[in-house]
Amino acid sequence: MALDLKKAGLVTELTGIDLNKDHAAKALELDLVCEIDTEGKTIATADLIIISIPVSVLSQLLPSILDSIKKDAVVIDTGSTKSLVCKAVLNHKNRGQFVAAHPIAGTENSGPTAAFPGLFQSKTNIICEKEQSAQQALALAEKIFAALGMNTIYMEAGEHDKHVAYVSHLSHVSSFLLGQTVLDIERDEKNIFALAGSGFSSTVRLAKSSPDMWAPIFEQNAEHLSQALLEYIMHLQKFQYHLMKRDVKELHKIMKDANRIREVLNGIELKQKQ
Amino acid sequence: MALDLKKAGLVTELTGIDLNKDHAAKALELDLVCEIDTEGKTIATADLIIISIPVSVLSQLLPSILDSIKKDAVVIDTGSTKSLVCKAVLNHKNRGQFVAAHPIAGTENSGPTAAFPGLFQSKTNIICEKEQSAQQALALAEKIFAALGMNTIYMEAGEHDKHVAYVSHLSHVSSFLLGQTVLDIERDEKNIFALAGSGFSSTVRLAKSSPDMWAPIFEQNAEHLSQALLEYIMHLQKFQYHLMKRDVKELHKIMKDANRIREVLNGIELKQKQ
Repeated sequence: MALDLKKAGLVTELTGIDLNKDHAAKALELDLVCEIDTEGKTIATADLIIISIPVSVLSQLLPSILDSIKKDAVVIDTGSTKSLVCKAVLNHKNRGQFVAAHPIAGTENSGPTAAFPGLFQSKTNIICEKEQSAQQALALAEKIFAALGMNTIYMEAGEHDKHVAYVSHLSHVSSFLLGQTVLDIERDEKNIFALAGSGFSSTVRLAKSSPDMWAPIFEQNAEHLSQALLEYIMHLQKFQYHLMKRDVKELHKIMKDANRIREVLNGIELKQKQ
Repeated sequence: MALDLKKAGLVTELTGIDLNKDHAAKALELDLVCEIDTEGKTIATADLIIISIPVSVLSQLLPSILDSIKKDAVVIDTGSTKSLVCKAVLNHKNRGQFVAAHPIAGTENSGPTAAFPGLFQSKTNIICEKEQSAQQALALAEKIFAALGMNTIYMEAGEHDKHVAYVSHLSHVSSFLLGQTVLDIERDEKNIFALAGSGFSSTVRLAKSSPDMWAPIFEQNAEHLSQALLEYIMHLQKFQYHLMKRDVKELHKIMKDANRIREVLNGIELKQKQ
């Protein structure tokens, strides 16, 4: 975000705050930020504060951040779950200055070295509970995400959490555990190297993701994600049942039905090329 | 294979046989083959026959193909399961002229329009039961796969089928059913379009694969794949159990452990860049 917002000329002074000193130093070295603030003093003077930290800490820290900001400052978060953070500040006197956002972009890599320009281009941003944000705050947030090239849509926090459980969080769990299952059986790993094609790489790519980031997301979205997991497991069990019965016709039917995802994926690719 | 073998100067006359008339016409139009043989007469005169058909039909057809070939002709198959096809011709008088191969390469697309040069470069090819092939047949097959840029390794058919159940077939099943689970809940599909990031696309890409090709593979490898599925389901259920207990520490540990896949994937990328 720092790279693209500087490029767009929307931000001039950029201060980075990070508990991880190596990441802070690297961010400075890579010119992502202009300076590092180790004490968090900048929070009281900044015009715009973008928070990108694990969602568990976010809902704990956000109330005190909103306590400390100056008049008319805007705070935007970027977390992957929205119910808890919205609840944490619902009655805060400065709630209007906060915009609950989820820019859906990223890779399986994290930290300052994972940054590259154009990451957000043509992707979707979701703003939740927009009626709780002051008009001026919402307008600035919309300007920021538009400068990143994102399409912003609006949702209730609960609705958001339910949908991302299926479309994003479940993918991550399925990938982590597919990786685990294969690592379990292929203990010496030489067979995985030799036998894995690009299909395997693509399917388990998300298993490289950061547990520090994802464990809190899964915890906060446990109810919805658990339901999604149960449905996924049910589909897998049904498939295994037909497999053991050698019911090729039924297996074919299930796969043919799942092929509908082709149009969806083509649509996503088209969207991202725009 | 046609594209790359012609490019390498290894084949000059190339005849295509395909039951699907549209595919046959398209292959000719795209210059993948020099001519189309609608009656299969070429089988009796060809020096080299490469068979790439669903594995269910392969084990039925191969004996009669081996009946019809000329002396010193070599037959190579490219199927994703190897036990049944090896068993089908084990005592055939021309078994020596057959090489059971599995070049691990491909995309989620099929048919002549999915062909592109360089697909096989730096990927792995597996030859099974090589002691059953005559030396001259084996040597020609090795030359063919080397010309495609592949690294050939050797395995017993049963061992092959077990490993690919985990490293390849399970990825496909997990992807098909992840796609199905998401399509089930997101009935109008507009939410998938809006909310899906590149992670989702990557994880469900294989759900675009051809049921005609995969249903017979799954049937033939049902025992191994069923076992792999059971283990995968067990991992998912364990994850869901810890999720419902909000045991973040345990979830973190599982993901951290699955992160080991990072080195494997980096190794695969490295291999494919060579």
